[in-house]
Amino acid sequence: MAAQPLNSDLFQKQVENSAKQLTDAITVVSTTHSKQFNWLDQLIRRTTSEANFRVQALRFIDVLPSLKDDLDLTDHLQEYFSNLQLPGFAEWGLKHSDAVWTTRIAAPTIRYTLRGLARKFMGGYKLHHAMSCISRLRHDEMNFTLDLLGEATISEAECEDYKNKYLEMISSLAEPVNNWNENSLLDISHGSHSPKLNFSIKLSSLYSQISSAAPQESINAICKQLRPILRTAISHDAFITIDMEQYDYKHIILGCFRQIIMEDEFKSWPHLGLAMQAYLKETYQDLFNLIELLNTRGTPITIRLVRGAYWDYETVIAKQNNWHCPVWENKNDTDYNYEKCLTLLLQSNTLIHTAIATHNPRSIAFSMALINQLNLNNDQFEFQMLYGMADALKPALIKLGFRLRIYVPYGETLPGMAYLVRRLLENSSSQNLINSGFGQQNKPLHSDSFNAPVATQQTIHLKSIDKKRFKNFSFLRFIDKKQSHQFQDNINQVKNKLGDKYPLIINGKNIFTDVTITSYNPANPLQIIGSVSSANHNFADQALTAADKTFKIWSNTPVRQRADYLRRVAALLSKRRMEFAAWEIFEAGKNWQEADADVCEAIDFLNYYALQAEIISKGENINISGEFNHINYRACGVCLIISPWNFPLAIMCGMLSAAIVTGNTCILKPSSLTPVVAAKFMQLWQEVNIPDGVINFLPGSGKVVGEYLARKPNVNIISFTGSQQVGTNLLKIAARIQPEQSHIKKVIAEMGGKNTIIVDNDADLDDAVLGVVHSAFCFQGQKCSATSRVIVVGNIYKTFVKRLIETTSSLTSGSPENPFNLLGPVIDKNSYDRITNIIKLGQQTATLHNYEAATDTENGYFIKPCIFTDVDPLSPLAQEEIFGPVLSVIKADDFISAINIANNTRYALTGGIYSRQPSHIEYAQKEFYVGNLYINRKTTGAMVHRQPFGGFKMSGTGNKAGGESYLHQFMDAYCITENTLRRGFAPDVENE
Amino acid sequence: MAAQPLNSDLFQKQVENSAKQLTDAITVVSTTHSKQFNWLDQLIRRTTSEANFRVQALRFIDVLPSLKDDLDLTDHLQEYFSNLQLPGFAEWGLKHSDAVWTTRIAAPTIRYTLRGLARKFMGGYKLHHAMSCISRLRHDEMNFTLDLLGEATISEAECEDYKNKYLEMISSLAEPVNNWNENSLLDISHGSHSPKLNFSIKLSSLYSQISSAAPQESINAICKQLRPILRTAISHDAFITIDMEQYDYKHIILGCFRQIIMEDEFKSWPHLGLAMQAYLKETYQDLFNLIELLNTRGTPITIRLVRGAYWDYETVIAKQNNWHCPVWENKNDTDYNYEKCLTLLLQSNTLIHTAIATHNPRSIAFSMALINQLNLNNDQFEFQMLYGMADALKPALIKLGFRLRIYVPYGETLPGMAYLVRRLLENSSSQNLINSGFGQQNKPLHSDSFNAPVATQQTIHLKSIDKKRFKNFSFLRFIDKKQSHQFQDNINQVKNKLGDKYPLIINGKNIFTDVTITSYNPANPLQIIGSVSSANHNFADQALTAADKTFKIWSNTPVRQRADYLRRVAALLSKRRMEFAAWEIFEAGKNWQEADADVCEAIDFLNYYALQAEIISKGENINISGEFNHINYRACGVCLIISPWNFPLAIMCGMLSAAIVTGNTCILKPSSLTPVVAAKFMQLWQEVNIPDGVINFLPGSGKVVGEYLARKPNVNIISFTGSQQVGTNLLKIAARIQPEQSHIKKVIAEMGGKNTIIVDNDADLDDAVLGVVHSAFCFQGQKCSATSRVIVVGNIYKTFVKRLIETTSSLTSGSPENPFNLLGPVIDKNSYDRITNIIKLGQQTATLHNYEAATDTENGYFIKPCIFTDVDPLSPLAQEEIFGPVLSVIKADDFISAINIANNTRYALTGGIYSRQPSHIEYAQKEFYVGNLYINRKTTGAMVHRQPFGGFKMSGTGNKAGGESYLHQFMDAYCITENTLRRGFAPDVENE
Repeated sequence: MAAQPLNSDLFQKQVENSAKQLTDAITVVSTTHSKQFNWLDQLIRRTTSEANFRVQALRFIDVLPSLKDDLDLTDHLQEYFSNLQLPGFAEWGLKHSDAVWTTRIAAPTIRYTLRGLARKFMGGYKLHHAMSCISRLRHDEMNFTLDLLGEATISEAECEDYKNKYLEMISSLAEPVNNWNENSLLDISHGSHSPKLNFSIKLSSLYSQISSAAPQESINAICKQLRPILRTAISHDAFITIDMEQYDYKHIILGCFRQIIMEDEFKSWPHLGLAMQAYLKETYQDLFNLIELLNTRGTPITIRLVRGAYWDYETVIAKQNNWHCPVWENKNDTDYNYEKCLTLLLQSNTLIHTAIATHNPRSIAFSMALINQLNLNNDQFEFQMLYGMADALKPALIKLGFRLRIYVPYGETLPGMAYLVRRLLENSSSQNLINSGFGQQNKPLHSDSFNAPVATQQTIHLKSIDKKRFKNFSFLRFIDKKQSHQFQDNINQVKNKLGDKYPLIINGKNIFTDVTITSYNPANPLQIIGSVSSANHNFADQALTAADKTFKIWSNTPVRQRADYLRRVAALLSKRRMEFAAWEIFEAGKNWQEADADVCEAIDFLNYYALQAEIISKGENINISGEFNHINYRACGVCLIISPWNFPLAIMCGMLSAAIVTGNTCILKPSSLTPVVAAKFMQLWQEVNIPDGVINFLPGSGKVVGEYLARKPNVNIISFTGSQQVGTNLLKIAARIQPEQSHIKKVIAEMGGKNTIIVDNDADLDDAVLGVVHSAFCFQGQKCSATSRVIVVGNIYKTFVKRLIETTSSLTSGSPENPFNLLGPVIDKNSYDRITNIIKLGQQTATLHNYEAATDTENGYFIKPCIFTDVDPLSPLAQEEIFGPVLSVIKADDFISAINIANNTRYALTGGIYSRQPSHIEYAQKEFYVGNLYINRKTTGAMVHRQPFGGFKMSGTGNKAGGESYLHQFMDAYCITENTLRRGFAPDVENE
Repeated sequence: MAAQPLNSDLFQKQVENSAKQLTDAITVVSTTHSKQFNWLDQLIRRTTSEANFRVQALRFIDVLPSLKDDLDLTDHLQEYFSNLQLPGFAEWGLKHSDAVWTTRIAAPTIRYTLRGLARKFMGGYKLHHAMSCISRLRHDEMNFTLDLLGEATISEAECEDYKNKYLEMISSLAEPVNNWNENSLLDISHGSHSPKLNFSIKLSSLYSQISSAAPQESINAICKQLRPILRTAISHDAFITIDMEQYDYKHIILGCFRQIIMEDEFKSWPHLGLAMQAYLKETYQDLFNLIELLNTRGTPITIRLVRGAYWDYETVIAKQNNWHCPVWENKNDTDYNYEKCLTLLLQSNTLIHTAIATHNPRSIAFSMALINQLNLNNDQFEFQMLYGMADALKPALIKLGFRLRIYVPYGETLPGMAYLVRRLLENSSSQNLINSGFGQQNKPLHSDSFNAPVATQQTIHLKSIDKKRFKNFSFLRFIDKKQSHQFQDNINQVKNKLGDKYPLIINGKNIFTDVTITSYNPANPLQIIGSVSSANHNFADQALTAADKTFKIWSNTPVRQRADYLRRVAALLSKRRMEFAAWEIFEAGKNWQEADADVCEAIDFLNYYALQAEIISKGENINISGEFNHINYRACGVCLIISPWNFPLAIMCGMLSAAIVTGNTCILKPSSLTPVVAAKFMQLWQEVNIPDGVINFLPGSGKVVGEYLARKPNVNIISFTGSQQVGTNLLKIAARIQPEQSHIKKVIAEMGGKNTIIVDNDADLDDAVLGVVHSAFCFQGQKCSATSRVIVVGNIYKTFVKRLIETTSSLTSGSPENPFNLLGPVIDKNSYDRITNIIKLGQQTATLHNYEAATDTENGYFIKPCIFTDVDPLSPLAQEEIFGPVLSVIKADDFISAINIANNTRYALTGGIYSRQPSHIEYAQKEFYVGNLYINRKTTGAMVHRQPFGGFKMSGTGNKAGGESYLHQFMDAYCITENTLRRGFAPDVENE
């Protein structure tokens, strides 16, 4: 048969011939599974047609295994389905129970139902279940690959544990499986021996501190764990396939694979495979590069080509971050890419063995036609399918003489839920062919099902493309080396610029003073970042005069022009994002991601406030016959801005840009710990030619600049972010009316927090532990939003605390120049002394874990994250803000007690809960008194616009930063009323 | 001819026959007016088709006579038409000028044009012009009635002047006119002599202090002025018709007429007429009642039946106040009513002589048919038309043998503008038949023009009927006696309840204390309004405990329920509005209207905040894939409310209702000067069963209750309205953090003002003087919004000050129980002493006018309004808040200087300008720094929702009361972020 172009009509004819062969081979089995699965069809039908039901059903299934008792279970059931015709769902669950609907009866029934569901898609809980499962498959002429389901491995201890389980699994199964009789169809591949034993493994399980920004360190750590597994596989004649995971890990997984297959020890070992995902836009190029590498290896490896199972997740994450979407947004493109990749693979038959992993009839028929055209033997490829999926197709493939391998996951129900939900999701997706009832219901496949997929390469945009709508600036993803290298280059360049001198800026003039503030690298105090001129009273007076004088003309500058200054600075900052992040790494001790996030937030503030100012400036009209009313806002005057060091760019930028875009003029006093970042920031304003006197840059001491100016009668607004003590002092100063003062001073004070996460007893602990750890320890806990208390509800306490401690002790710490280090130093010696002292005192009342502080602070103010357990909720540890990497764990009997403990502070800034019980989530929404409440995620990282940020009680006075009302604080409202009735007549009114 | 029912087809046939007679009688004159009026048609066409042009053109014409020089005129011209194709307009103005378009040429041309316009509709400027005008009419076989145009008479001096002019006009014209030859058509009515001399007079010109609420006093005052005019008319054989004016005066004008015609002196005099307006819904009944009265008089009078000329004004005013609209909203109904009234009049031929005043061909034809059917002779009625209107119809009526009288206004251009604009309005109305070019263009009238009008009785609603939309509660209009009597009854009833004792209310319990606050009537200090229990520290502690304890449950009460308490109190207050107003009259010294307005505002606050709270409670969602963000607000805690005496109900109610509807609990400390109104108000909350502890009522001294509680750590919000001194002291107290305090206290302080009105040199002085007088002196200037400085620009200073002083001296003052008194006492002895002292000191630096204070304050703290001229803008008089009936006049060279002077205070509350120059209005909108700026109206009387109220600088800290953002001050914002991505999937997002 002559080779046909794959996009030709003739080839399509061949696909259709194959399709006919395939459908003819299907023997319809009226009930392929036992009776207890009848309701599954109903569930799938309902979850497909009712979006809300689908969400609730899948979430309920997800939480089910973590529910400890029957009452808990029925509570959850009722809460999840209270608005969704519970009886219908109950019926579904109770179909096979004659008992009355009571808690005692319902719970076991539901559990039985879930186990049934699990059995449909999993090979069992224990190794011996898995053994009998794969034996059954062998009996039915199918190969297997075994996947050990587990919890997310979030600490090195868990990784070690997982590795050991893997080793044990291989050794245990080796003897019985290798003793199976040979089967030439199953055990020969490319004319050679193919191991009977076959395992699939997730590399993320082997190492808990994977960092995209430090790929080589991650690869090294993973390979170190992988090698013993591969050695055991070799010694037991087992085949290992490395599963592909989410896109964030792809570069590292691929990196591991490429590294390990070229190592001498494994270079000639053929029984190693890698899964690749056709839904990724990069996969074709990745395969192409891999083939290049394999040319030098010689020994072939196997590629399992799948479509990919994280489509929802990948698109959601990309959308949330305004990232380029790594997966094809249109399913047609994935289908098209699958065939394209498959063609490449099968054409590279000598270097790569191909596992065609699909349940899609068109893909199978296409493969058959392609194999035919390439003249491949049936042992030169295999098909793979998932356990429990597309069961009607499997015997047909066998009947057609193909080798078929079944992917069999096994493990505990609890960790297996992620897998189960993914399968149910797939089965309930309206795009899924299986849903149409194909096979099971003896429905012939529609011939359209075999049409060639047409590539669209479309990007699906957000529903409403509104140019006016604010979009957050995207974080760096550090997934390709180019980006990391560029970032590293910026670090190196900044390193060469350390030690410069920076001026004050008053009325547009740069002024260098003799007295300066020296800024040090907290990770390396001997390294001077720069020295910044320091203001005295005289300069403060000059700055105030300049700001005062400039106010009139600046406040009368059209808002569009003022907003454009912000946008121009945002554009400069966008271009130089890495440079600014590098400065933060040196001056504030932020790690790569934190530094980048701070720059992004600064850009967001600029763009958001520019837009908001324009919106607000339109005012509001309330017109009626004969009367025109217009409500609008005007600038207040001179704004004194006192900004903190912990978000040295973003917070300062937000406070400053809000003040000036609304027409106020400013005096900016940055933190004396991060004055260089501030000085660099000022250079941007000079570059965009901000008029003289609008921003007067006045580094200096709090007393000499801050307090002194706060007292001045012609300061109108004091915008402060920092400690409660300084904030309340400023409030007091501002409330004292000075002679000649002609306005009440406004004080916008964003202060501290004592933030709590509550971990409910039905929480997803994988998520909860990681969320708590990141909320508490990232940037060493030096965020006002950082979690410093975790309250654990009920019987999960032990498990949670164990995992928390292990995970915390796995965190990497060290110089933030190296992206491998998640954690860095605290900001300065004062902080170091204060925090270490708190830890010392805390030990008198609570149990300390993980504590380790640098003994020699000359090499940086490092304090490794530590945890206190057995903490009294009223003790200083649990009440005072620490602003360091110290977390207190408190136990609560139930959720309501937990909320009460959480509220029992003077602060109300952030808070979080991890819970999957709807009533608890609702209760927290009402009763957890914090400015920003986070549900099932970390408490840090509020995004401009989406999560307006700020607290109340002693945490602050102001409107939320990054929210619609923030700018109003910098303005006075006025209302203009015009009587338009003149001589008895008035113009028509439109909005009446 | 048999009488036909007027709604029958047969009668309609007769009307059509009459119409034919009428149209046959019209001799078409191709150009009835001289060449210079050609452009009038163009103007009319353009103003008809372009709404915006119409507004600007009429406004420009309105301001024109007040423009003193040419530069001023061309400035205005350019500003009025800058966006409206000025060249087109210029062309219009310059059609008959060959000169270049320059200021020097343009201005005279425009003035010439205006004079042409005026000549079209007016009989001239001077009496001798009028004389030649009416002689011409006599020559053309037409009668006249002469109307003396004048400025609004806003002071008694001006009324006196106007009366004298009238007397002079009658005497001067008597001799020449009475010497005219007799003309049997013109000079015989109902077979008897009809005077040749005929005048129309506006009663409002005779008395400047007309009060709807005190109709009899107004009638007496007017009649007193009218009698000499009537006597002069009798002695000179003149006929007097009393013009009808706007609806507000109708009851008084009708009252005057009914009174005077029954007085012995005038009872048998037949030469008296009254104009009645068919567009008023009440007119038919009024005519009916008048006929009844005439039955007892015997001698007939004349009724001139018109449609009415203030339709726009009446509907606008009614809409603005949510009043029942007094005029038919649909023109068909007016037409229908015209015929109905006319039928009644002509049928009452023996008691009433009818003047059919119309330019409407259908009305004329209808009249002719009706006259025919009633067998009336041509001397038993007359037609009347306006000078310059429908000139084609006039000769036709004469040709048909009818008596026709022309209404001829004459007088100065400046005061004549109101009349001219009204005529132009009418001529440019798209509903006006004349516009169709009828007569002038030889167009036959369409036969539809003679169809019978069909009554609709429709009420035209606002365009969007939105039930959710807030509507202000309507003020009483005091135009019918029933309302006034009812109000008086309430005053009497309250009088009987004076002297009661009122309790504190703590946690729902009434507590009577031994120590009490005694409340006196400021107009009669010997009269005790009541005594109110007074709290000590112990009660203050109890109240705080109650409020604190109740907070949790109240803040968790659904907002809908909380809002409903407000709505129920609003409903009670609506029912008992007059009772509450009566209490205010006694306790605060408010006049009827001010007391009523305060009650209305209280009701508005209740309804508005109820609605706003519900709207706000919905929060805002910003949802994206995998993330749900909800921004909402929650109550803060305990709110201490310290309310003032000057709006004893409204401000207290606004502060209180805002605090509780948002979920806070309250301690209410009312002013010790008006505690009884507060206690009565508390009874309403008890009636609606507000839960115990939500509002704790705590009258007492500022030190013992206010300051004491302001210091307490568990007071969260201090809401204060009052003096700057107390307000800033509270700010200071609140800024000091107390031990155990767990929040920053919020202070909402609404304080004083030093408010200015600027009167520009092109201002409409009739409006400006009245606006300034009302802004400065109503409620004795005891409003934070009251004007206390007026800045007069340029060359109008003398005229303005003269009118201002005269108008002020005409104001009535005395016990507010009597609605005749516009002004009452100041609130207490302290105020009296303070204000009189300020006046005494003021005389050292400025010139005092009108000063008069009660010498014996035992009969009330009366200080008549007084004015300082030659005031230095920096003197205490011009800088310090006085809070009394004292107004300072300052002269400014130009408008910009005036704004600078106005801004030169520590306050920024209200301000006003009277100007008709667009660039000045725009400049003030930008540069006049006040919270509420009013253009061409008074500075007091801000309406909830339409004019959110409040200032900045030293005037206040808060968001505007009665505006959307007010409630936010009583709440803390929070943001809930839920990660909805679980197990890799997230529910769909709708608003993405």
